[in-house]
Amino acid sequence: MPFPVGDSENDGKELFEWLIHPYTSHKFFKDIWESRPLLVLRHCPRYADGLFSTKEMNRILNECNVRYSVNLDVTTYQNGRRETHNIDGRAYAPVVWDYFKNGCSIRLKNPQAFSKPVWRLCATLQEFFKCMVGANTYLTPPGTQGFAPHYDDIEAFVLQLEGKKEWTLYSPRSGKETLPRYSSGNFTADEIGDEIFTQTLEAGNLLYFPRGYIHQAKALPDTHSLHVTISMYQRNSWGDLLEKLLPTTLQNAIIDDVEFRKGLPLDYLSLFGEQNCDKHPDRRRAFMGKISDLFRRLADKVDIDAAADEHGINFLHDAMPPYMTQDEKSRSIHGCDVGMTSPGTPTHYICDIDEKTRIRVLRKNALRIVASQNDTNDNSVVQVFHCVQNPRVYHQEEKKTFEILRQFAPALEFLIHKYPCYVTVGSLPLDSNEDKVNLAISLFEKGILVTEEKIKML
Amino acid sequence: MPFPVGDSENDGKELFEWLIHPYTSHKFFKDIWESRPLLVLRHCPRYADGLFSTKEMNRILNECNVRYSVNLDVTTYQNGRRETHNIDGRAYAPVVWDYFKNGCSIRLKNPQAFSKPVWRLCATLQEFFKCMVGANTYLTPPGTQGFAPHYDDIEAFVLQLEGKKEWTLYSPRSGKETLPRYSSGNFTADEIGDEIFTQTLEAGNLLYFPRGYIHQAKALPDTHSLHVTISMYQRNSWGDLLEKLLPTTLQNAIIDDVEFRKGLPLDYLSLFGEQNCDKHPDRRRAFMGKISDLFRRLADKVDIDAAADEHGINFLHDAMPPYMTQDEKSRSIHGCDVGMTSPGTPTHYICDIDEKTRIRVLRKNALRIVASQNDTNDNSVVQVFHCVQNPRVYHQEEKKTFEILRQFAPALEFLIHKYPCYVTVGSLPLDSNEDKVNLAISLFEKGILVTEEKIKML
Repeated sequence: MPFPVGDSENDGKELFEWLIHPYTSHKFFKDIWESRPLLVLRHCPRYADGLFSTKEMNRILNECNVRYSVNLDVTTYQNGRRETHNIDGRAYAPVVWDYFKNGCSIRLKNPQAFSKPVWRLCATLQEFFKCMVGANTYLTPPGTQGFAPHYDDIEAFVLQLEGKKEWTLYSPRSGKETLPRYSSGNFTADEIGDEIFTQTLEAGNLLYFPRGYIHQAKALPDTHSLHVTISMYQRNSWGDLLEKLLPTTLQNAIIDDVEFRKGLPLDYLSLFGEQNCDKHPDRRRAFMGKISDLFRRLADKVDIDAAADEHGINFLHDAMPPYMTQDEKSRSIHGCDVGMTSPGTPTHYICDIDEKTRIRVLRKNALRIVASQNDTNDNSVVQVFHCVQNPRVYHQEEKKTFEILRQFAPALEFLIHKYPCYVTVGSLPLDSNEDKVNLAISLFEKGILVTEEKIKML
Repeated sequence: MPFPVGDSENDGKELFEWLIHPYTSHKFFKDIWESRPLLVLRHCPRYADGLFSTKEMNRILNECNVRYSVNLDVTTYQNGRRETHNIDGRAYAPVVWDYFKNGCSIRLKNPQAFSKPVWRLCATLQEFFKCMVGANTYLTPPGTQGFAPHYDDIEAFVLQLEGKKEWTLYSPRSGKETLPRYSSGNFTADEIGDEIFTQTLEAGNLLYFPRGYIHQAKALPDTHSLHVTISMYQRNSWGDLLEKLLPTTLQNAIIDDVEFRKGLPLDYLSLFGEQNCDKHPDRRRAFMGKISDLFRRLADKVDIDAAADEHGINFLHDAMPPYMTQDEKSRSIHGCDVGMTSPGTPTHYICDIDEKTRIRVLRKNALRIVASQNDTNDNSVVQVFHCVQNPRVYHQEEKKTFEILRQFAPALEFLIHKYPCYVTVGSLPLDSNEDKVNLAISLFEKGILVTEEKIKML
């Protein structure tokens, strides 16, 4: 598994190409993405070693506060009947393994919160996909199935980690269920439509299928199955963008373009509506022509930058915090561990950033500068949203944000656009050296920056 | 003033042509409406006699519960300063006339609630305009001005009733203030822009100006002034229709058209937003092309019938109840006054409607049939909204509505579309005579129908 920390976007791409190997991302996005399933049989059982295992799941259950329903589901699917066996409170290892031995499947719902390799995988892929990348791990006893046939609302990459599982995929049942926005309920055998293929996944193999593809999977009698499903592109479609875009676009159009403020024709209420829909086809057509014209004018008023910022801010709220190596940590505030030289005497932290210090932002897509979102609409500051201080549990905390003076914004933009290069503090586009150093220190202390060389600790 | 009760829409048109005489409505809507002011000097001081007078205002103050702020404003505009002198509670005649004698203007805000001729005017015009028609009367002492220069959000028809008033009109100050959606605040002399004309209105004269035209008016020193302003087309523009239309249109498009459900390009968050708006112009342009394409597709998904029904239901809530003549009342439930033949013995009401009775709906635009708005979405019934039982005060009561069985809807539609003709109950498109008669009686008793001949009262 490739995990350099060079250019985070490129690191994400390389990791994605590891996931779909031997496909390239170019070929994948051209031929496969959102249009058809892909099966990669790699004949390399140890391909994903180190990512996640039943041993790791056992460690997590023993060490972490894993809670039923919140973090873990216990499920069965027998005789066409899907059941959840969750109880309340913490999922203690002995109880969970007892369920498992009795034929129950175990789904760990956000392994990235407990497992560093899965965290690293999600956080790295999200730099490439620029949307939330989620994960679930599924452990299934031999000869059982844990879930009913259904389809999901995400792009799914199923990576087999241990044992074997037999997957059956079915085509989306209709145009309306192609790339659906919401997951389905559980289907019965006569609802699932046309089978595409049945295939056994072994460790190291990958199965990709777009949202809307009905699927079911069962562990073969001879062995258990463990896989991780990596997911993304939930509610990340053109329609979702338009939902953000349209209300402000219409308000802008009404303000800017008098055509939207002209009165409706006197007769329009008698042309349209349930009681009139079969009358006056010509007048109706003319009216619809005008509506089409207004839609074209509307398209000219789109403020896509504002919608993208809104979308981007939500992504940063969804996002995993960056996974950092020890080396990276040591070149940022994250690794400036303060000890005690003697009881009551903290070690001395020296932020020795000056004009010659070479810095860069921590990740390409970990922050976003937008106009102030304050009620007062204070134009002298801009707001910075970021995911650097996010918890590893989705939306457990509020959005991470701080303000900087508007005159400092070009310097932060410069840093973002220079990424992955390190630049000297002195090269920041600000008037005084004092401003440059102060901004750099302030961003460094918020965890946004890494330096090329280690920061001093006395 | 022409007030026949033939075809209500045509009656409204004739009344409007009386208002703008010698203009025809065709010429008015072609050359004037929403585009320029119009001055009609009729040299016929008694042209609008009987509509409203200071004598009628005195009667209303003496007899009706007119309340400050709700129904009446007392205002002055002196030395560039606009003041409101309203106190709390009922506006008693002696107090109001005292204000007036001391130089205050008196605005009666909804004279149609107190004056039958103004009610009749508004109710008749609304059948032509198919939107709320409002009224205000303004009484101004000699040599005074009651309001600061401002513009309104309605089409204004100023009909001078008594005395004289000198009006000055100014062009909208910018494209953005042309046909504005909201009224302005009060302007100072140096904010009002270019004067179009100053003209004295005398009784019988009319001044029309579109929303957005700044205006001010003062009574000349030699006489008081009384005028009525008839208004309509408040928030009745294409933009208002689109506000109703867009949310459901987008949801329909997302459900019907997979293009809206396809994922956004991976790089879109780095192409757009405040921090990126000067980068990658070519990619931005291509992306915007896709957005334009989606807007075109969106236009195909417009459910204008649903939006028109929503708009139509709101209109019926805003609308004045129909003004009915004694003759009309006597041919409807409205005029079936029940007396007592002796104490404790109500007169006998016989609804002698049978297949041969000739009926029609009360007004062309007084009701609207729509799909059931119930939570249960009961498809076996349709909902009928109407203004027949509205109070004469705007939105004082909830929307007037009732349900009928869906199989009766074609019969009610038939009646609506046959208007202004009377048709026999037997001609209703229903299977049984019993259904025809029962529907007719039920609508008659709700006040929706008039018969051609009087209904019996014993």
